Amino acid sequence: MCRFICYRGPEIPLADLLYRPTNSLILQSFHAKERTEPLNGDGFGVGWYTPQISSTPCVFASLTPAWSNRNLRQISEHVKSGCFFAHVRAASPGMRVSEANCHPFQYGRFLWMHNGIIRDFWRIKRRLCASLPDHLYNMIGGTTDSEHAFAVFLHLLGDTGRICSADEMGEALVETIAQLERWTAESGLSGPSYYNFAVTDGRCVAAVRYVSDPTAEPQSLYYSSGGKYQCSQRGVCSFCECDASERTIVIASERLTADARDWFRVAPNHVLAVDAELSVNVELMDVARIGSRVNGQSPVTPEHASILTN
Amino acid sequence: MCRFICYRGPEIPLADLLYRPTNSLILQSFHAKERTEPLNGDGFGVGWYTPQISSTPCVFASLTPAWSNRNLRQISEHVKSGCFFAHVRAASPGMRVSEANCHPFQYGRFLWMHNGIIRDFWRIKRRLCASLPDHLYNMIGGTTDSEHAFAVFLHLLGDTGRICSADEMGEALVETIAQLERWTAESGLSGPSYYNFAVTDGRCVAAVRYVSDPTAEPQSLYYSSGGKYQCSQRGVCSFCECDASERTIVIASERLTADARDWFRVAPNHVLAVDAELSVNVELMDVARIGSRVNGQSPVTPEHASILTN
Amino acid sequence: MCRFICYRGPEIPLADLLYRPTNSLILQSFHAKERTEPLNGDGFGVGWYTPQISSTPCVFASLTPAWSNRNLRQISEHVKSGCFFAHVRAASPGMRVSEANCHPFQYGRFLWMHNGIIRDFWRIKRRLCASLPDHLYNMIGGTTDSEHAFAVFLHLLGDTGRICSADEMGEALVETIAQLERWTAESGLSGPSYYNFAVTDGRCVAAVRYVSDPTAEPQSLYYSSGGKYQCSQRGVCSFCECDASERTIVIASERLTADARDWFRVAPNHVLAVDAELSVNVELMDVARIGSRVNGQSPVTPEHASILTN
Amino acid sequence: MCRFICYRGPEIPLADLLYRPTNSLILQSFHAKERTEPLNGDGFGVGWYTPQISSTPCVFASLTPAWSNRNLRQISEHVKSGCFFAHVRAASPGMRVSEANCHPFQYGRFLWMHNGIIRDFWRIKRRLCASLPDHLYNMIGGTTDSEHAFAVFLHLLGDTGRICSADEMGEALVETIAQLERWTAESGLSGPSYYNFAVTDGRCVAAVRYVSDPTAEPQSLYYSSGGKYQCSQRGVCSFCECDASERTIVIASERLTADARDWFRVAPNHVLAVDAELSVNVELMDVARIGSRVNGQSPVTPEHASILTN
Repeated sequence: MCRFICYRGPEIPLADLLYRPTNSLILQSFHAKERTEPLNGDGFGVGWYTPQISSTPCVFASLTPAWSNRNLRQISEHVKSGCFFAHVRAASPGMRVSEANCHPFQYGRFLWMHNGIIRDFWRIKRRLCASLPDHLYNMIGGTTDSEHAFAVFLHLLGDTGRICSADEMGEALVETIAQLERWTAESGLSGPSYYNFAVTDGRCVAAVRYVSDPTAEPQSLYYSSGGKYQCSQRGVCSFCECDASERTIVIASERLTADARDWFRVAPNHVLAVDAELSVNVELMDVARIGSRVNGQSPVTPEHASILTN
Repeated sequence: MCRFICYRGPEIPLADLLYRPTNSLILQSFHAKERTEPLNGDGFGVGWYTPQISSTPCVFASLTPAWSNRNLRQISEHVKSGCFFAHVRAASPGMRVSEANCHPFQYGRFLWMHNGIIRDFWRIKRRLCASLPDHLYNMIGGTTDSEHAFAVFLHLLGDTGRICSADEMGEALVETIAQLERWTAESGLSGPSYYNFAVTDGRCVAAVRYVSDPTAEPQSLYYSSGGKYQCSQRGVCSFCECDASERTIVIASERLTADARDWFRVAPNHVLAVDAELSVNVELMDVARIGSRVNGQSPVTPEHASILTN
Repeated sequence: MCRFICYRGPEIPLADLLYRPTNSLILQSFHAKERTEPLNGDGFGVGWYTPQISSTPCVFASLTPAWSNRNLRQISEHVKSGCFFAHVRAASPGMRVSEANCHPFQYGRFLWMHNGIIRDFWRIKRRLCASLPDHLYNMIGGTTDSEHAFAVFLHLLGDTGRICSADEMGEALVETIAQLERWTAESGLSGPSYYNFAVTDGRCVAAVRYVSDPTAEPQSLYYSSGGKYQCSQRGVCSFCECDASERTIVIASERLTADARDWFRVAPNHVLAVDAELSVNVELMDVARIGSRVNGQSPVTPEHASILTN
Repeated sequence: MCRFICYRGPEIPLADLLYRPTNSLILQSFHAKERTEPLNGDGFGVGWYTPQISSTPCVFASLTPAWSNRNLRQISEHVKSGCFFAHVRAASPGMRVSEANCHPFQYGRFLWMHNGIIRDFWRIKRRLCASLPDHLYNMIGGTTDSEHAFAVFLHLLGDTGRICSADEMGEALVETIAQLERWTAESGLSGPSYYNFAVTDGRCVAAVRYVSDPTAEPQSLYYSSGGKYQCSQRGVCSFCECDASERTIVIASERLTADARDWFRVAPNHVLAVDAELSVNVELMDVARIGSRVNGQSPVTPEHASILTN
């Protein structure tokens, strides 16, 4: 179950989010506050965009823990970006710790992260793989449920070469969960699956907070939106109320700074979409659409129906 | 394309084969003699049996090169075994260097290694996966053609819990190649695939030297059979002509020692079976059976036919 | 500050101490109970003796966390030993996570581990190095205070080729601490240093629990002594009251099993010596000898005086 | 004995030197042409400057081989710099493969690399360490002769906070060799030491090609100077004769491209200094000054004399 952060705003050193806040992601790699198990030491990854060099993000990942990785420290202090994802991993039981299983996963311009677990994933894995076109099937390099979910998302999103909107990405996120839940239901499983996903193409970001069991609490998720995010020499980090042109969005599994006013809790079953102009839209997911799996009425839209049968 | 060794005989320190011979496996990790490319630096693995402790082998693998691995050196000097496999890897282009992709692969009592490549493996991967029962499909932890071929072998071998003979293992090896070639032919591919496989259950060993294109040269393979294998203090290693009770078999991608009389070259298209008493049987494969794929007459025996269709 | 275990008794699989007890060392690698910080994820090491193969121990170490290391799991299930050390590391701030810094450290027949920290070690490092003969100075391959302390111990022990008694080893342990404290005092430092050391030559074991500041609590240390140590299929581990010939000693940073009657807490400032027949001797250290550094009266015995001046 | 490259010029993606040329550094990591042993697989490192973010360089290093490192590939394609060093390592026998031993080494604004070996380094190591002030002694994190030589260089350079000229850096390089040779001579050693060093502060670069034995051939070293260095889509890399404002200097152990006219061989015993305006000065070293060690007349200048005696 993992911890992650997404940043979108003016260019800042990665370290300003990874190391400097009082509850930085690096701190969460061994002392996460909002998980029963505070440890996220099974590798990490960071992906960032530098549009002036490439439309695809740069991904740096390692199977060693984030807290002691010198390369991560160096890179975080020397690389600035206006859009980056970072993730510290707590491997699900039986899952291998390897670079191939580290988030964020990348495909073309897209980055993908997951905090959660698809219950009894192995029971839907074949069905999922069978639904994928060759290029997405062969993209999969690891063994995680998360990377397989990414392939489903990309398939549902359609042509990954075109520029899509934040709403389309959010929509595809919800549909991905609906699809995974349908397969899970068909397998006769009932345990809760946790689906906190985040995805970006370097321009827009979408994220979701969801658990399949309405009586369970989904994994925590917050966001913060304000002026430029700044860390002082003394390590105090905050969003300043300054120039509107320096708008900033941070989405994170936990609040990074102590000032609670800076952070909004994403409500359960909500999807968050950040468009290219950094406007944020938070919406209740159409849970009925997902939930309908329970009584067997498949809500699959025509264009996606082929996935189930091909 | 890799290098490997198999040892079966009286208990010896692993180092006697891995480090001491003039053309040791460690030397072959950077200076292989019978490959165009002398480098096998993409990880390694060793698996050994200690029947007094467990019926399953112990596997130690690492994604770092064999030549500089201190743990391998330590273990090789301190562990004795009467049956072990060792492998130094040269990853096929595009294949990830990871622990999950290191040979030998293990399942229950079995170890498996491959020196070669299945041409355009990704084009038969889905068909192959579809043929596997769940327990073998879910066993696969990496992305290599080699590990997938192992799953096919185990499926063809049938009940992996029972004790099987060397001939059964050899037979299943040949049938595995036949199966892989059928799928390859159905995909319309024609490039040569290289199939030097070795398998053991800790008692018997089977290995094969085969290339699918009759005009191509298969990867090199040798074996040596004699009395106890010994390394003197001065690093001279040889098979002594001593007590028949100390019979020894070594199968290796390259001759390990300088004395050419000690080593037999396995002829192309031959399968080698070593039974529990260490008798060696080298036989020409029924190439016609494999070759028949070309004209479309599938030679599948009834009990295996289901693999193609389920 | 780390956690460790020492085992001496009949041959058992390493896994019986590393994985099976309810508070196993692997569990302590992420959930240590008797440290403020429960995490010991900065690499690990295990060293074991197989006297029938070699008089030197086999050391396997890795810079990745113990809890996810597949090689450690494999080796622990397949290797039996009658004498082994294992250690999970929590690196001191600023100390690099590397294989060279993993405990146990090995020299000839000896293994050495440390749970603790020498305060401001860098201020006595040059003085310490200057005191060492070339062969011990050049043995040092990492940067830890612990390995440097090992070199001091070996120097004080004298000829490391001869067989020495448990008492001699215990005595050298105490003298090592005295020496380190003298250097520390001469540097004008005052913060507490934590010295829980353990050492073995494969026959005898000595360990010590000490903190230089009498008002501070030393790191925890326990031992257990009984008949053969056994783990049932259901994971219940205990010392059976059976054959006296199967005597067993376990020394550990924390109690490994729930039955408090099985474990004795080593009192502060005590040294524990286990001889080749597995008799245990626990003695109060001659604290006065160490403490005398405070008033500047160096208690150096003549034969050790040279260390300070050469 | 390693291979390295230094780049100074307009900002380019690191990949343009590391991956694209026909004899790229990555290719040299397994197929070096001008070493007897073509393999440089014992880790790698790259350090680059982005003056708009920081005056100190970013260093990324790994103990795995360069040819299979995905992070290196990613970073090289996504990072641009106008000054960078890169190094692929072939560890000297007995030297550990670890991140701490990977070049380039960094201190403040400086990067340092070495291609060569100081013969019997361990015999001068203590003397060398004794000569260093605390801040440089404690900077040393690994065990290589190369990093220790860096510390000597920094000591000889004096105040590392001030901006120094290319000539000062070249001068300090020569003096470093002279100093190391004096210590070596005092130890009574005679084997040849190979000193190809390169150093930069992000503005100027200095490099040297030297072997202590006049009858031996020093390690190869080349440089290229021209207009902007460019790699076409088809992988053809060359220096274009264009705008003088886009001057470029590359220093490399081997010629990176096939066009021999682009590369000058640095003559033995020459030092090369590139100033902040990218003017190159190649000068014969004052070999007599170094050589004078043979007859015992120490040429130490007053301000450096203290190093020998403190």
